[in-house]
Amino acid sequence: MPSNAQSWVFGANDPELGRGLNHLPYTCFLDEKGKRRIAVGIGACLLDLKAASPLIPQHLREALSETTLNHFMGLGPAAWRELRTVLQFLLSRANRDRKVLEAALVPLHDLPLELPAAVGDYTDFYASRHHALRVGELFRPEKPLLENYDWVPIAYHGRASSLVPSGTVVRRPAGQRLADSSPVFAPTEKLDYELELGFYIGQGNALGEPITIDEAENHLFGVSLLNDWSARDIQAWEYQPLGPFLGKNFCTSVSPWITPMEAVNSLKVRAQPHQNGILHYLQNEHLETVNLNLIVQISTTRSRRAVLAPMQVSQSNSRGLFWTPEQMVTHHTSGGCNLRPGDLLATGTISGERREQAGCLLELTRNGHEPITLPNGERRAFLEDGDEIIFTGWSQTEGQMPIRLGECRGTLLG
Amino acid sequence: MPSNAQSWVFGANDPELGRGLNHLPYTCFLDEKGKRRIAVGIGACLLDLKAASPLIPQHLREALSETTLNHFMGLGPAAWRELRTVLQFLLSRANRDRKVLEAALVPLHDLPLELPAAVGDYTDFYASRHHALRVGELFRPEKPLLENYDWVPIAYHGRASSLVPSGTVVRRPAGQRLADSSPVFAPTEKLDYELELGFYIGQGNALGEPITIDEAENHLFGVSLLNDWSARDIQAWEYQPLGPFLGKNFCTSVSPWITPMEAVNSLKVRAQPHQNGILHYLQNEHLETVNLNLIVQISTTRSRRAVLAPMQVSQSNSRGLFWTPEQMVTHHTSGGCNLRPGDLLATGTISGERREQAGCLLELTRNGHEPITLPNGERRAFLEDGDEIIFTGWSQTEGQMPIRLGECRGTLLG
Repeated sequence: MPSNAQSWVFGANDPELGRGLNHLPYTCFLDEKGKRRIAVGIGACLLDLKAASPLIPQHLREALSETTLNHFMGLGPAAWRELRTVLQFLLSRANRDRKVLEAALVPLHDLPLELPAAVGDYTDFYASRHHALRVGELFRPEKPLLENYDWVPIAYHGRASSLVPSGTVVRRPAGQRLADSSPVFAPTEKLDYELELGFYIGQGNALGEPITIDEAENHLFGVSLLNDWSARDIQAWEYQPLGPFLGKNFCTSVSPWITPMEAVNSLKVRAQPHQNGILHYLQNEHLETVNLNLIVQISTTRSRRAVLAPMQVSQSNSRGLFWTPEQMVTHHTSGGCNLRPGDLLATGTISGERREQAGCLLELTRNGHEPITLPNGERRAFLEDGDEIIFTGWSQTEGQMPIRLGECRGTLLG
Repeated sequence: MPSNAQSWVFGANDPELGRGLNHLPYTCFLDEKGKRRIAVGIGACLLDLKAASPLIPQHLREALSETTLNHFMGLGPAAWRELRTVLQFLLSRANRDRKVLEAALVPLHDLPLELPAAVGDYTDFYASRHHALRVGELFRPEKPLLENYDWVPIAYHGRASSLVPSGTVVRRPAGQRLADSSPVFAPTEKLDYELELGFYIGQGNALGEPITIDEAENHLFGVSLLNDWSARDIQAWEYQPLGPFLGKNFCTSVSPWITPMEAVNSLKVRAQPHQNGILHYLQNEHLETVNLNLIVQISTTRSRRAVLAPMQVSQSNSRGLFWTPEQMVTHHTSGGCNLRPGDLLATGTISGERREQAGCLLELTRNGHEPITLPNGERRAFLEDGDEIIFTGWSQTEGQMPIRLGECRGTLLG
């Protein structure tokens, strides 16, 4: 199959959709009975993998007829590649036998989508050095980057129960914060988004058996856009000494689309060398990082009333991340911690080198002290009720269909 | 049923076992086919709740025939009380109709037990002020207790995948630590235990709908002993600014026994008032805390060779905890975070007021600088390979059978 092959499905060759044969992202939709169905996106359609079952290799059918992808994720890269190869042929113009497939195609338009995997554990890294440095400048100007940063892929365990699919309404959390010199319990006044990528684990590992850096790529299944909503005032008051807790766990929005690593791998670029070197267990000769353009947009109550399109807030790119997805997997398991299929490893806020490439308002507005002005004239220090935040991401190789990640959206109730 | 009623089951009235009619802890065992079965402990036996099904109220049977307790936990306190009342009668001497029950009783002795609930999310608090203060003295002598401690029930998200039942062998993790002035990757040299209680959530709450302090007790299902194994050197190097990660997530041992809150509630004592006051959302008129005596024992390769009984390392009590289980539930959900049936909220290390009541070696040995001497003459700064750590806990009310929590054990491979 040539890498720029065309598909016979409606919209599949449309660069604006970015869901061609070289993409084939996974998702989950609800059928007429309200039951979860695993599907693959192609152009303006979903391919229902249960309905397409007769065309799928027999040993994969059971896993793909389940209500989550977890079983299939656990089958490993040979199974993922096999399905991908089969689907790329079936959906290509070279295939003339389309009857079963046509019956398994569902038009996408307003179909509500769900997260295709059940996430057992969710981990959030801090892999953008630009972000860590600029946040550090705000709170520790004398020593912005802590001495461990260049050595340890810093991360914390997030909350799995409050992961929600893109489109779910987000409620402004109340919590403790320091007001003058004493704490109060009140709705947060510093609600922020965090632009992130979330990598899903495919095959897991047994407790006590680390995944080496050479093996790590075989454990990565795919990637989604993720918004780690954060209440900065709650976080600032609670986070010492055990890290963020209620400032983060009220909601994390995730795109219902998982772009397979096979689609992303063609977009990889060499990771930048680290000035201080890298400890041996995180090092090999082919460290690569994903190269995705990322955009944050906002629409506000006022902008929607004026029928304005969403307004761009910032633009970033994942190629500047300090740690690769493989390094995150290896570090996470290096002490023996077990990962399970469907676990989610997010990057942390992805900020570019320049200040306007920041992936959150904390950086863009310097903790609210320098509000930004939106294209319609509104100002924002932090988010206001009614604001909708939209993340998009895409990448393109010369002569290929662009790959557009599934959007991640969320509107603040109000 | 009088509160000191006797049971006809073997061992049920033996105070050394501490599993009388006033206890009835839940657990899970594997049947001959290796299938998980939910059971209740009584004396020297387990009551297999699936086999006892004909005697159980019909609307509870389905939940109790499942392979985990999660469904039953979600039914709420009326269901839990109903089952408890029925079992207390059936297992009492007043009941003469014992045929079905006898067939459902399984002798306990060496039956391997499993965790009876599937834990979706695991949270670890820092609820012992004595512990926080003494750890603070080690690392920040000028300011041992951070200013948020007396206001915020500090906690972090732990790792659910690496929760293991008591008895599982624990492997010494490798990880990054600072050696002289540069980091190395090597096996931890500061492996420690943490004496904790873990509270299981019964009914959950919907995302965005906090549980008030008055409602919180209806969401607590039961309690288990828990050992949050910690690698202090890894933790010290990685924990800034996002909290503990690999220093904790390599393994957490949990007793397979869950003591129901109904059994624990009779042991509660009034919580100590806080000098600074308590913010309104965490306050009501009947704040109570559980009153359990807790003991840490060690057996070493040498002590086992000499056929010595496990040696006591320290003794503590949960009544000194600064935050109650209800306050933990309310704080956890106060920003809208959802809890699910089977989620686990642990207390953090439970240390008493005096130094010898410390719940971990970090405190007992002042970060290894003052090794302790065990009764057999061995010294310990931190744990050595082959060491087994055993937690036990019990409580007693005048004229009642004592309630003994299920043990939590773990041996370091080596």
